[in-house]
Amino acid sequence: MTSLRCSPEKIRLPRGFSFSAVAAGIKVSGRPDLALVEAANGASAAALFTTNRVVAAPVEVGRASLLATGGRVRAVVVNSGNANCATGHSGIQACERVCREAGKLFGVSAAEIFPSSTGIIGVQLPAEKILAKLPELIAARSPGQRGVVDFAHAIMTTDTRPKLASARFRALLSESSSESSAEGSKEVTVLGIAKGAGMIHPQLATLLVYLFTDAGASPRELQPLLRQACDDSLNCMSIDGDTSTNDTVLLLASGASGARVRDVRTRKKLSAALAAVCQSLAEQIVSDGEGVQHVIRLFVEQARSREEALLVARTIAHSMLVKTAWAGADPNWGRILAAVGRCGAPIDPSRVQIFIDSQKVCRNGVACAFNERLAHRTLAQPVCDIRVQLGRGPSAVRFLTTDLTAEYVRINADYST
Amino acid sequence: MTSLRCSPEKIRLPRGFSFSAVAAGIKVSGRPDLALVEAANGASAAALFTTNRVVAAPVEVGRASLLATGGRVRAVVVNSGNANCATGHSGIQACERVCREAGKLFGVSAAEIFPSSTGIIGVQLPAEKILAKLPELIAARSPGQRGVVDFAHAIMTTDTRPKLASARFRALLSESSSESSAEGSKEVTVLGIAKGAGMIHPQLATLLVYLFTDAGASPRELQPLLRQACDDSLNCMSIDGDTSTNDTVLLLASGASGARVRDVRTRKKLSAALAAVCQSLAEQIVSDGEGVQHVIRLFVEQARSREEALLVARTIAHSMLVKTAWAGADPNWGRILAAVGRCGAPIDPSRVQIFIDSQKVCRNGVACAFNERLAHRTLAQPVCDIRVQLGRGPSAVRFLTTDLTAEYVRINADYST
Repeated sequence: MTSLRCSPEKIRLPRGFSFSAVAAGIKVSGRPDLALVEAANGASAAALFTTNRVVAAPVEVGRASLLATGGRVRAVVVNSGNANCATGHSGIQACERVCREAGKLFGVSAAEIFPSSTGIIGVQLPAEKILAKLPELIAARSPGQRGVVDFAHAIMTTDTRPKLASARFRALLSESSSESSAEGSKEVTVLGIAKGAGMIHPQLATLLVYLFTDAGASPRELQPLLRQACDDSLNCMSIDGDTSTNDTVLLLASGASGARVRDVRTRKKLSAALAAVCQSLAEQIVSDGEGVQHVIRLFVEQARSREEALLVARTIAHSMLVKTAWAGADPNWGRILAAVGRCGAPIDPSRVQIFIDSQKVCRNGVACAFNERLAHRTLAQPVCDIRVQLGRGPSAVRFLTTDLTAEYVRINADYST
Repeated sequence: MTSLRCSPEKIRLPRGFSFSAVAAGIKVSGRPDLALVEAANGASAAALFTTNRVVAAPVEVGRASLLATGGRVRAVVVNSGNANCATGHSGIQACERVCREAGKLFGVSAAEIFPSSTGIIGVQLPAEKILAKLPELIAARSPGQRGVVDFAHAIMTTDTRPKLASARFRALLSESSSESSAEGSKEVTVLGIAKGAGMIHPQLATLLVYLFTDAGASPRELQPLLRQACDDSLNCMSIDGDTSTNDTVLLLASGASGARVRDVRTRKKLSAALAAVCQSLAEQIVSDGEGVQHVIRLFVEQARSREEALLVARTIAHSMLVKTAWAGADPNWGRILAAVGRCGAPIDPSRVQIFIDSQKVCRNGVACAFNERLAHRTLAQPVCDIRVQLGRGPSAVRFLTTDLTAEYVRINADYST
């Protein structure tokens, strides 16, 4: 099995899906901003949504549609440039119009069209622009790599590059399987496409991520696999601590490979493939975070529970003082210790160890001699490991985060005006 | 009663205290970094300390000293340029040496010397430099304005200006009072001096703030007055969400005015004077926050409880996306709504109203028409009011916070290296 960083020439394609994108004029830049994926024979779906109390119209509509269809999806229509959030009843209506029209064109009910939006909050969705482009969008769909790459580009906002990852494995057919295969096995592929560079702190749910597989599974079988795959990857990262109102992860299974997750071995392999794809997407999202110069892999260890480890990791990852020190490749570990101290858990500072890569910089909560020049050089790398040991228990978490740069401020100080 | 912004010529001085400062070479810049205040006849003391689990040596020593003396303080010795935090047993010893030596010079026990430190975490305190300068520091003390201003400058780190505030009132002498006065009243003064520009998010305790009054009071009488005065001022502000390891508020009462807080009317007036001084210091600290261009007075209203209002205020105030929008004077209220939605309280977005100054920009959680140019102009002012109504109950909070600028990043990306 392979987990790939974004290198479109190596992307593997699951059978049963076709992709396309067009420019509908929602983005002022005129770049592609409307994307489609279709499962010609339909797909089983599982989804996770934002835990923000403020939810965008497409999240409300998409959630209701999955309930109504029992988890069947024919096509996904995504626009970037407008979040369709805080747009009230008009926003819901605009979203429903798009789904209805797309459903008509595919000959299915509106509920089988899954909608997504990303972009500015509080501006009405220009549904007319989308409706006018739907026929062209649908006509352009293709099962090849070109469509996938177009899709990945069209869902970007402040992203500087598309995020794609895939994995492939062979599923041995179980003896009880009624399907026949010359080799006694089927090739199963998982493809993931994501966007996200700001308002990234998925909590329980996550951001715009689309996962596709040609494994066969019921919606009920898919949901726990999706939850598991996200918990250690997309749910363990933060760029700026802000949880989006539009976060959505959608997993679609076409079944076109002939392998079914009812088989335990196939389920395990699919679970591992999903985890690898989600982890790669999480890394790609964080490394393309707004203004990011340094990605930090934060390891919080020896916590009493996973929740405690996460609390510590999030407090460190959201400290503006810690993040700005990282921007300067400054081994100012005192700020990390201060963040640990204010996290809310009853940490005993005299049991805390902090490492920059393999160098210990804080021993039992106190300064210890270390090579500052080496620590600075380590932190100046594009990716750096920071390890915090709490001396309280057996739990650990690996959390992906970033520095906070002047460029982040510049990007976000003039987004809407 | 008056609450003054920093204008040293108008600072009123409480009787019974003298001040001084010198340069001891702790700051690399060579600026004054060692400050003293002495209460010649001793003073009653009340104090609040950081709630960070990581506490600096002077916080540990100062807390123990107040317990040992039952709240009596002869002098306060403060250094800037070094926090004496995460310095272990050596740090405690260095702090105790300074207190012991100062005590010797004043002819009192070490426990009557209250220590404070502020600056970088994790570097051993250069106690020798302080000890060498103590005689000069003590000789320089004076009860006049010059000493006060020197003190305020010497405790600065990344502050660009000193923070001073004072208030004065007349205390009518109660009939039962044994003290005599020609006018039947005594003049009572409250003086406050603070430092702080980063790592500012006091929680329950607060930062380096020194309050002096010539009212007479026991330590037991002072503590609730101090707590009350801080709750709505120093505890309702945040620059960057980071709670310092050295936060200390110390209130000293010399009794030299002849008025005592045992009298209920005097206690009420003193309480109001303390509140006014603390509020002024909070405003001064926030407006001098690192890189700050805009101060935001955030009013969260119609919350179910004060705690809920504070939770919402803090979530908004710590959102990097909201703070960077403020830096650009961008009326992007969608980010405020998204922060409200992720705060953890069961907010109903459809009951949320958001105002920029007097203009409503979000009605019932949805975009409403407003004059964007006017909103931008309002936000471009040095101080701007933002009001968020939750539609849930009767509680409210006024919270002071700031924008997040590229200058903040610059200041904090190269602090220690």
